[in-house]
Amino acid sequence: MATLSVPATVPCPSEDVERLHKAFEGWGTNEGLIISILAHRNASQRKLIREAYSSAYGEDLLKALAKELTSNFERAVHLFTLDPPERDAYLANEATKKFSSSNWVLIEIACTRSSDDLFLVRRNYHTLYKKSLEEDVAHHTSGDYRKLLVPLVSSYRYEGPEVNTTLAKAEAKILREKISDKAYADDDLIRIVATRSKAQLSATLNDYNNEYGNAITKDLKDDPKDDYLKLLGATIKCLTCPEKYFEKLLRLSINKMGTDEGALTRVITTRAEVDLQKIKEEYYRRNSVPLDRAIAKDTHGDYEKMLIELVGHE
Amino acid sequence: MATLSVPATVPCPSEDVERLHKAFEGWGTNEGLIISILAHRNASQRKLIREAYSSAYGEDLLKALAKELTSNFERAVHLFTLDPPERDAYLANEATKKFSSSNWVLIEIACTRSSDDLFLVRRNYHTLYKKSLEEDVAHHTSGDYRKLLVPLVSSYRYEGPEVNTTLAKAEAKILREKISDKAYADDDLIRIVATRSKAQLSATLNDYNNEYGNAITKDLKDDPKDDYLKLLGATIKCLTCPEKYFEKLLRLSINKMGTDEGALTRVITTRAEVDLQKIKEEYYRRNSVPLDRAIAKDTHGDYEKMLIELVGHE
Repeated sequence: MATLSVPATVPCPSEDVERLHKAFEGWGTNEGLIISILAHRNASQRKLIREAYSSAYGEDLLKALAKELTSNFERAVHLFTLDPPERDAYLANEATKKFSSSNWVLIEIACTRSSDDLFLVRRNYHTLYKKSLEEDVAHHTSGDYRKLLVPLVSSYRYEGPEVNTTLAKAEAKILREKISDKAYADDDLIRIVATRSKAQLSATLNDYNNEYGNAITKDLKDDPKDDYLKLLGATIKCLTCPEKYFEKLLRLSINKMGTDEGALTRVITTRAEVDLQKIKEEYYRRNSVPLDRAIAKDTHGDYEKMLIELVGHE
Repeated sequence: MATLSVPATVPCPSEDVERLHKAFEGWGTNEGLIISILAHRNASQRKLIREAYSSAYGEDLLKALAKELTSNFERAVHLFTLDPPERDAYLANEATKKFSSSNWVLIEIACTRSSDDLFLVRRNYHTLYKKSLEEDVAHHTSGDYRKLLVPLVSSYRYEGPEVNTTLAKAEAKILREKISDKAYADDDLIRIVATRSKAQLSATLNDYNNEYGNAITKDLKDDPKDDYLKLLGATIKCLTCPEKYFEKLLRLSINKMGTDEGALTRVITTRAEVDLQKIKEEYYRRNSVPLDRAIAKDTHGDYEKMLIELVGHE
């Protein structure tokens, strides 16, 4: 369930484009006008706006926005305006240029998008960067990280509801053995996590929980300083309960000393059109504060306004 | 360049379907009629024929063919009639149920198809088998084989012509070091082979050849009894010179004691619409005998006729 709200009557793209252009003109930018348009159009509407802007003014709307806006507000508008698979390709490419912390972005894109959407990200990656996503991921990582990340970003999981309970039992046992041996980067463990359908993996993890008395994510908290282990835990959360994963990411990005705008902006802009409603509910359940109020407390100005428009008011 | 010949005026699908149905009727089957139709229609025409047959007679054409035909002839007609991505999904699924020799089929499909075609194979695999190709490949293999095969079948390589010569030089050096150390399943070696674009990989291998005085495929012939090493060599051939790979496969399937109909049928039916003309030329260059004559000498009856119609007469 999305939080994005689109007006009942949407102006035609050429009207939106004209108003956007006006918002850029003269002294000072009309940020409110920009937000009122772009934060309330869905992906296909934004695509048409970008095309219309480019043919009306001979400039990419994103470049025009970059000239007018700054800092976190600019990034939020930029990310949200991008078409979702192009946005994911962009975020993934940024991630392959940074060190390990950015591996979380890769995990998110690989594990919380649908199989077809992940494929579209890979196709957009070709167009934008003249390379494949997996070659950049493989090149930027090594060792256990590479072993886990490359199959995840290359996966095209089956998405049907079918579950093989015998297989679930057998693979729960394999996972248990490997985790008991602390063989967290074992071939079979990674094979199960990286290739099984989400329905099958959930059945396996339920079996694990029933049979061995502990959720696998608990058993993976063996060494809180081990970044690979944290990443493996995040992978499993992204695959089986994405809204909990995103809730925690928001919680950590808002509640810590100094807001982590990178994560905050990414979660809001990438989920507003997908499942931000569920994430909000999860956030309220866990924190007893509505997400919009938590964000408003931690951010300010146009950046705050943009995020709140995407999150929706309670 | 394909060898498939389609008549200048193609009958409409309903006409073809009626004639096929007639070929199945009464005592004995009119194999010649079946060949004259199915061996001379392209993929989209065959698709329309299958659809028209199903709506006219309430039965899948492939099932009707299976009732009428037998043995190698049946398999050749069956494979050729299938839509290419569905055929590849079918062949790959067969391969995941057998032991290591069938890994060659997986390599062929993963490395000689275009990136988009390989993706279509994966999508067809979901529909047909309610699983993903990579999960079956990962499940059916282990060790070095899995390490090589899973990223290959999951790849979505960039296909542009751009080449980074500095990178080619650096990666040729890596390949050389790993091969000198006999580390044939090294992470970086597999990363380079499994993720780089074919153009980039060719540049790297040219650099290897220039710098170290030997083609990499020569250097991989270290131990002719090592099946993994043979598979790695085949992978590189499929990626960089598929027609040479297929020529050799045909040569070995025809010339050995007892024809290898499995490989022969597979190569002819999967390449007739793609590059069989180039493979034929390579075959003649290497064997001084036209491919159609070699096939005619080694096969007989309707099976021979079907293959020859697909290969074309010199």
